[in-house]
Amino acid sequence: MTKSALQIARAAYQPKLPKALKGTVKVSEGNPTQSIADQEAIQKLFPNTYGMPIIQFVESDEQVNYPAINVGVILSGGQAPGGHNVISGIFDGIKKMNKESKLYGFILGPGGLVDHNYKELTAEIIDEYRNTGGFDIIGSGRTKLEKESQFDKGYEILKELKIKALVIIGGDDSNTNACVLAEYYAAKNNGVQVIGCPKTIDGDLKNEMIETSFGFDTACKVYSEVIGNIQRDCNSARKYWHFIKLMGRSASHIALECALQVQPNVCIVSEEVEERNMSLDDVVTYIAQIVADRAAKGDNFGTVLIPEGLVEFIPAMKRLIAELNDFLATNAEEFAHIKKSHQREYIISKLSTENAEVYASLPEGVARQLTLDRDPHGNVQVSLIETEKLLSEMVGTKLAKWKEEGKYVGKFAALHHFFGYEGRCAAPSNYDADYCYSLGYTASALIANGKTGYMSSVRNTTAPAEEWIAGGVPITMMMNMERRHGEMKPVIQKALVKLDGAPFKEFASKRESWAINTDYVYPGPIQYFGPTEVCDQPTKTLKLEQTK
Amino acid sequence: MTKSALQIARAAYQPKLPKALKGTVKVSEGNPTQSIADQEAIQKLFPNTYGMPIIQFVESDEQVNYPAINVGVILSGGQAPGGHNVISGIFDGIKKMNKESKLYGFILGPGGLVDHNYKELTAEIIDEYRNTGGFDIIGSGRTKLEKESQFDKGYEILKELKIKALVIIGGDDSNTNACVLAEYYAAKNNGVQVIGCPKTIDGDLKNEMIETSFGFDTACKVYSEVIGNIQRDCNSARKYWHFIKLMGRSASHIALECALQVQPNVCIVSEEVEERNMSLDDVVTYIAQIVADRAAKGDNFGTVLIPEGLVEFIPAMKRLIAELNDFLATNAEEFAHIKKSHQREYIISKLSTENAEVYASLPEGVARQLTLDRDPHGNVQVSLIETEKLLSEMVGTKLAKWKEEGKYVGKFAALHHFFGYEGRCAAPSNYDADYCYSLGYTASALIANGKTGYMSSVRNTTAPAEEWIAGGVPITMMMNMERRHGEMKPVIQKALVKLDGAPFKEFASKRESWAINTDYVYPGPIQYFGPTEVCDQPTKTLKLEQTK
Repeated sequence: MTKSALQIARAAYQPKLPKALKGTVKVSEGNPTQSIADQEAIQKLFPNTYGMPIIQFVESDEQVNYPAINVGVILSGGQAPGGHNVISGIFDGIKKMNKESKLYGFILGPGGLVDHNYKELTAEIIDEYRNTGGFDIIGSGRTKLEKESQFDKGYEILKELKIKALVIIGGDDSNTNACVLAEYYAAKNNGVQVIGCPKTIDGDLKNEMIETSFGFDTACKVYSEVIGNIQRDCNSARKYWHFIKLMGRSASHIALECALQVQPNVCIVSEEVEERNMSLDDVVTYIAQIVADRAAKGDNFGTVLIPEGLVEFIPAMKRLIAELNDFLATNAEEFAHIKKSHQREYIISKLSTENAEVYASLPEGVARQLTLDRDPHGNVQVSLIETEKLLSEMVGTKLAKWKEEGKYVGKFAALHHFFGYEGRCAAPSNYDADYCYSLGYTASALIANGKTGYMSSVRNTTAPAEEWIAGGVPITMMMNMERRHGEMKPVIQKALVKLDGAPFKEFASKRESWAINTDYVYPGPIQYFGPTEVCDQPTKTLKLEQTK
Repeated sequence: MTKSALQIARAAYQPKLPKALKGTVKVSEGNPTQSIADQEAIQKLFPNTYGMPIIQFVESDEQVNYPAINVGVILSGGQAPGGHNVISGIFDGIKKMNKESKLYGFILGPGGLVDHNYKELTAEIIDEYRNTGGFDIIGSGRTKLEKESQFDKGYEILKELKIKALVIIGGDDSNTNACVLAEYYAAKNNGVQVIGCPKTIDGDLKNEMIETSFGFDTACKVYSEVIGNIQRDCNSARKYWHFIKLMGRSASHIALECALQVQPNVCIVSEEVEERNMSLDDVVTYIAQIVADRAAKGDNFGTVLIPEGLVEFIPAMKRLIAELNDFLATNAEEFAHIKKSHQREYIISKLSTENAEVYASLPEGVARQLTLDRDPHGNVQVSLIETEKLLSEMVGTKLAKWKEEGKYVGKFAALHHFFGYEGRCAAPSNYDADYCYSLGYTASALIANGKTGYMSSVRNTTAPAEEWIAGGVPITMMMNMERRHGEMKPVIQKALVKLDGAPFKEFASKRESWAINTDYVYPGPIQYFGPTEVCDQPTKTLKLEQTK
């Protein structure tokens, strides 16, 4: 591995730890817990891991002799900055308790457990990856651990390697599966503990006990850096509207956090679009009106932030897509015989009036894409829609109409960007480096104390690291029952942007001013070595949530 | 202006200056100079500004009383990091010589001079913009200063504001125009000096006396940061090929510098493609072979860097585009009546055999784009071609064929990126902050010494700033005669990537290993406060050029 100068300098960074984790760790247990909803159903599904208390670690100078322990770790799903620090935190934690302890990494995600694909993570390997981005130390994968056959196959290798605890680093689904696995092994009484760690740049795995998922801070800062740069360009050239799509299909936390950081002219929040039952035309009109208002004062430039998942939050689009899925599934053969140039009319003639209207309003490219590209289950591939281009094209069309009607005087030229892969593997910010290391270290303490079915939890993270609170939260506590693929399943509730939450309210109180005035902020790149007010700030989202 | 924490901290940075500029400045003149080619023609066109000596400033403790002077400044063309520091360097320079001196900025580029659109740049304004990115202090524009009527109109406002010297900050074309303006004012003997400053992120304005254009360093570092992040993602997920297009239409310096920084699997250098007379199919085959070779060892992922201007460097594509331009210009009406579904065949039937073949090999979308979107002069808009998608689509097609023939076993999934606007307005790196400030300060010294038709020059910049050499280079010295729009014109020779230059040779010596092995480097974001080996490095291009 050829290392950059920054990587070499950064390797020396010693992540901060909560006070309680510095000495010997003592467990303080709270009262029994309940799941956030559907208590009876969840309890029935998780008889061995339901109702456990919240755990907090407290300082202690008691000497404890921990036995050596073998631990396995899995990186599950999309990359997020800081994953390597979670792993080095686990490593340092179990080594501190007993230097004979060993850490094994399963290769390329949960599939590595099932396929018995692993490697031992030695001090030498770990040291190569401290404070670096990426998941390349062992790779990641999207295999879902759901079936008992997988659990049994996994147990074979755990037994062979004498692994007593498995740490699964993942998002809401992976942590749900971690809990199912914990329950399964507990029921089998096979002595394997399972601990989860909250990861996802999307920021949608959070609740009262999990303040934030790791990676969200760094990813949002990388996006805000480049958006800030684009805004400065926009404000210098004064002739383009930049439509910027941001990763995050299930929730708009990233777009909202970036908006709070860069103060764009427009930011669409999917959750609000859904809540207000806005149509695609409503969204387009909203943007076009701001373009027109700015043009009226001579400013034919601006920035628009768009969450990747927007289309799926627009109720009318959701209905259209549902009907298209059904229609094309049952009429695939007939449709295949329709001439390309007649497909649009054909589809319009077959849809219900409401959906036909929405379909007819779409630009040709998007309309075609909705009928042509379908996934293996026959569903429309919404993720392939270039929402940023869809919106700018429709805004352009609307403005042209307004121009004819004398309601708009200006020039509209659009540029498009999509940021996602740029931020998922950035080197973690100080915040994420510390938070991840603490999450990993906490996981090792949960293991040492015999816990299973817990998620590693580090809280109070807007305070200095010294004051952070480390502990564990029973995963069942975060669960409710939801319909997935037609079946009711116990799942961790996904955290969407709350319209009555402090971050959205802050944004909503400012957006009209940001829209018409040009009050861009240019956050610049993540700094690792400078003054603390530059280097050690958590996200605006978290700060606002904590000061409510 | 709401400022970010970094912006506030960064405002305090005092850019370094060459030693010679710290005290009173003394001029050391070299021998008379010649233009690099077409000496007779250039001399004839620039009787007043041809043959002037190279100037170097040397330290002195002589006290000189400079009169107060009013100076104008213009930002011309695309944004580049550091423009604000050039302006603050000019400001500090003229104020140091006489605190009654004044600086005026012309608004939104050269158009501001012609339209008499300006503002005085006071200490208060300047202080708001020190060490920041963007050109928003006065804005930039692309109006070309070419006509005598513009020069005369400009002189009116210069006279009104008692401006004795004008600094034009721009690329090769803008500096050519600065020289024409200098010559015109010198011939009129109206007492206005004109000085140029070498700006462009593209890096194609450089020669023996101008080591680099400002902004190239910062922009390449921003691109390398995000490409590095993508490479780390690529190496963690191990399932995508990322096709990354980089700004730079006329030369491939950016792509080459980024390649040296991140060590991708593939980087195409347009100048080499042209030199070797490669066809589009040759380029596609080259990439596809690397994809296949990596797939053979189980690595179905990788990165490809593509310079924005590639298509225009492929000789066969150039010939095709030329014939298309001619054909569509004379047959526009007939073509307009061809049905969309028959256009492709129609074009193929009308082109010469060679060009018809190339045209037929293009994916449908690109082929259509080449006949549909044309600029106001009726020319094909090459810049609209999404080269990154064109290449990945053609690579995919070739691999599918090879798979059928049993020559390729693997999966090929591509993602696309284009980076340009992300880097043009980033806050300048320490290198660019220092270099730009020195360029501006040097410009003020050239002005104080009565020079005109010079470009501000700061050299030896791979050494510590103390040892930098500041001076001026007659712009005519960099000129030759080139055909532009059918006419022979004096222009500054554009610096393309030299295939026998040290940067390309370094790349060429490593690329085979980078192609097959995964030896990605992750440079990380620009750091402003850390250790010097992280914060104060010039580009690899410059270092290699200087150590040859």
